[in-house]
Amino acid sequence: MKYYLVILFCYMQNVQCNYTFETKYADIVIDHFSYTRNDTFKLKYLINETFWSDGNPVFFYTGNEGDIELFAQNTGFIMELARKFSALVVYCEHRYYGSSLPFGNLSYTNPKYLGYLSSEQALLDFVDVIDILQKSKYGSDGPLPVIAFGGSYGGMLSAWMRIKYPASVLGAIAASAPIWQFTNLTPCGIFNLITTLVYASTPKTFDCSVPIKNLWPAIRRVTKTSEGMAWLSSTWKLCDNITKPADVDKLIDDVIDAIVNVAMMNYPYPTNFVAELPAYPVSAICSNLKDYKTYLKDDKKLITSFVKAFDIYTNYSGNANCNSFSGTPSLGDTGWDFQSCTEMVMPMCSEENDMFETAPWDIQAVSEQCLKDFGVKPRNPSEVILQYGGKNLKYASNIVFSNGLLDPWSGGGVLSNITRTVTAIVIPEGAHHLDLRGSNPADPPSVIRARKFHADSIRGWLQDFYN
Amino acid sequence: MKYYLVILFCYMQNVQCNYTFETKYADIVIDHFSYTRNDTFKLKYLINETFWSDGNPVFFYTGNEGDIELFAQNTGFIMELARKFSALVVYCEHRYYGSSLPFGNLSYTNPKYLGYLSSEQALLDFVDVIDILQKSKYGSDGPLPVIAFGGSYGGMLSAWMRIKYPASVLGAIAASAPIWQFTNLTPCGIFNLITTLVYASTPKTFDCSVPIKNLWPAIRRVTKTSEGMAWLSSTWKLCDNITKPADVDKLIDDVIDAIVNVAMMNYPYPTNFVAELPAYPVSAICSNLKDYKTYLKDDKKLITSFVKAFDIYTNYSGNANCNSFSGTPSLGDTGWDFQSCTEMVMPMCSEENDMFETAPWDIQAVSEQCLKDFGVKPRNPSEVILQYGGKNLKYASNIVFSNGLLDPWSGGGVLSNITRTVTAIVIPEGAHHLDLRGSNPADPPSVIRARKFHADSIRGWLQDFYN
Repeated sequence: MKYYLVILFCYMQNVQCNYTFETKYADIVIDHFSYTRNDTFKLKYLINETFWSDGNPVFFYTGNEGDIELFAQNTGFIMELARKFSALVVYCEHRYYGSSLPFGNLSYTNPKYLGYLSSEQALLDFVDVIDILQKSKYGSDGPLPVIAFGGSYGGMLSAWMRIKYPASVLGAIAASAPIWQFTNLTPCGIFNLITTLVYASTPKTFDCSVPIKNLWPAIRRVTKTSEGMAWLSSTWKLCDNITKPADVDKLIDDVIDAIVNVAMMNYPYPTNFVAELPAYPVSAICSNLKDYKTYLKDDKKLITSFVKAFDIYTNYSGNANCNSFSGTPSLGDTGWDFQSCTEMVMPMCSEENDMFETAPWDIQAVSEQCLKDFGVKPRNPSEVILQYGGKNLKYASNIVFSNGLLDPWSGGGVLSNITRTVTAIVIPEGAHHLDLRGSNPADPPSVIRARKFHADSIRGWLQDFYN
Repeated sequence: MKYYLVILFCYMQNVQCNYTFETKYADIVIDHFSYTRNDTFKLKYLINETFWSDGNPVFFYTGNEGDIELFAQNTGFIMELARKFSALVVYCEHRYYGSSLPFGNLSYTNPKYLGYLSSEQALLDFVDVIDILQKSKYGSDGPLPVIAFGGSYGGMLSAWMRIKYPASVLGAIAASAPIWQFTNLTPCGIFNLITTLVYASTPKTFDCSVPIKNLWPAIRRVTKTSEGMAWLSSTWKLCDNITKPADVDKLIDDVIDAIVNVAMMNYPYPTNFVAELPAYPVSAICSNLKDYKTYLKDDKKLITSFVKAFDIYTNYSGNANCNSFSGTPSLGDTGWDFQSCTEMVMPMCSEENDMFETAPWDIQAVSEQCLKDFGVKPRNPSEVILQYGGKNLKYASNIVFSNGLLDPWSGGGVLSNITRTVTAIVIPEGAHHLDLRGSNPADPPSVIRARKFHADSIRGWLQDFYN
């Protein structure tokens, strides 16, 4: 009841609730699949038993590339659902992220340490933690049904949990999980195309992708000279001054990341997930660009309008002395870069029909960069498809794939039903896994429907289980 | 047609046919699941395209613990079925056996080399070879349906292939696959109990388990003195003389292995799979023991009767100068011992109701021996259950589990249907994966039925595939 009031309070206040969790650590073997070593590490997981009563399910969040707390605080839907289902809620961190570092400070120093970072190892970490829960006081009356939840990469993991370990998890809610964003499964340009469409269609009165498409050549022209670089650094109050062409490339990459992040986080209320953002941040940014036609040919004026537009991303609080595009430090970018260099090789390209600089997918260049950065390179782009089955999901069961159609990642997602129990639900007005967030008065009807679909699916799986 | 005649010839001659295969090697990564190393090794596979025509299925044998040729020459059923289905036949060796040694001569010297011997790694080896086949000339008209076959550990692997990689194999025929011979899934004594029942019930006129149960104390009593040890060594013409108590233990272990092997290979015609054996070798051995009641209390007479009885196992050809209980060198016993020390931990015990010396299952003692032998010990007896789902096979599909009820391993097998497509067929008169052997006039009706069941199951899976 206390929690109910807290939730109601959060709801009325239009903010995400801060749920409290007990922090635990499991001893997990570093290498599940071979026997060249036998040592273990401490894997962190969070547990909340507020709503739980004997024999009821476990809602298990399969953590992704970051501190597990970040996901626990941005996935209020699970707590709300736990109340309805009297469920135990567990958020399990992903190895090599947050504080679950198998080799402590050495974890990221060398492939001989970092090499155990893989999705297959992570899945068995989750299987082991579920086994620990089943053998604990919670499972003392017999095995509990476990439902996996995850968003984004975490959603891929929750789907793969059910595909690979159906004896461990009864079903999976895989939100915004681009499990098909791999070689030969999805065209490489779709991600940037969706991002473009979001910016093109969000403002009611103009196509915001036009000024963005014109930004890149403007930056290139202005920064041809050192004076231009100095002007840009000073005008944008950049924390890291631009002094050479590589800095220009880096700035453009950062701005692209910001544009993509804003599309992913285009939630109908203010959030602080990947960055501090206002409600509908795409509209907020674009509102500063609506007069772009009057200065489209004036590079410096165009750039200046973006400086103002991006204030909400780089300096939302208004307190920063300089502008930086670095995202939340809770996300483990280096770890994800390594995963992208080994099995999570997701082809991405920009083509004529999108608003970015044209860039083909160049696996050769990616491989060379990976070798330079980490001493590894992608072995075989089919690896992840062979491992998890690619588009052949006919023999899986009890998975819901949800996707917001405003989410760039939806292009690599499962958008239509595969079988009677491997189903898809789309949220036309949704950004990146909006459905996993707690209820909010600003929620569009489609996300409310999606959450109901999740609850109904889980109810059906549980009925099968208890019969 | 030529092949048809060859098969007919084999059939009439009452022998297994010698099929010929092309030998190939695939470059396979040593560690599929981590990225601490990136090197590859040569995995051997055999291929026979005699019956194959475009678009027809691949019959893929998932090799077990030995030279792949041994299995290819003792699994004639697959070739006979290939003729009916116009199938391509592939026998794939299991890493660390035969000539598929990832580190050549070093492979068995140290856990740092031997540690990559695991079923999970082996399954992905098979997935990779199937991928190579699909991308070769055979798959040029689109993906081919692949049916996995295997017997014993190979049968476990073929079932697990379908469970874990349903996008790679359409279905699996898992013959005599004791996938439940693991901790808490099957009582540890059932294996020895079935062996006992086979010896008790096979001879029509007497219970042959009685003299066997009396053999062990007789050997113990006789070998209490050095004279007794010398007498036993000389009477049994042992290649390795018995001079100390540990030698006695070793002899008893060897005789138990022989008794078990003979039960497993209790085929209705002469075979040379694990050893050179006559038809119905259990009866052949027991026929020498039928008068046991007249000398049951005379230790030396009892032992002497076993010496004669075991002649068919230790010296079937009659040409050996001394008797040895070593099995076929084509089986990789050391590799299997390592696997039994890591994930394939199969609890075995002897109890009052069987014909062996009472011996509890002692995981502690096993662990210590493993540490001594290999520098590793079983991590967690649940590991293999968590990996493959244990008894929870409800969500798998397209697997036939076949078991001969005269096979000691049937105790750990799947003996009844799990779902509509995960089915079981028992062969009351069958020994260890008799159904995978080529047709023989001496085949009991139940094995003919089982083979028909396999063919019908495959036909159904293929119909689904082609629709």
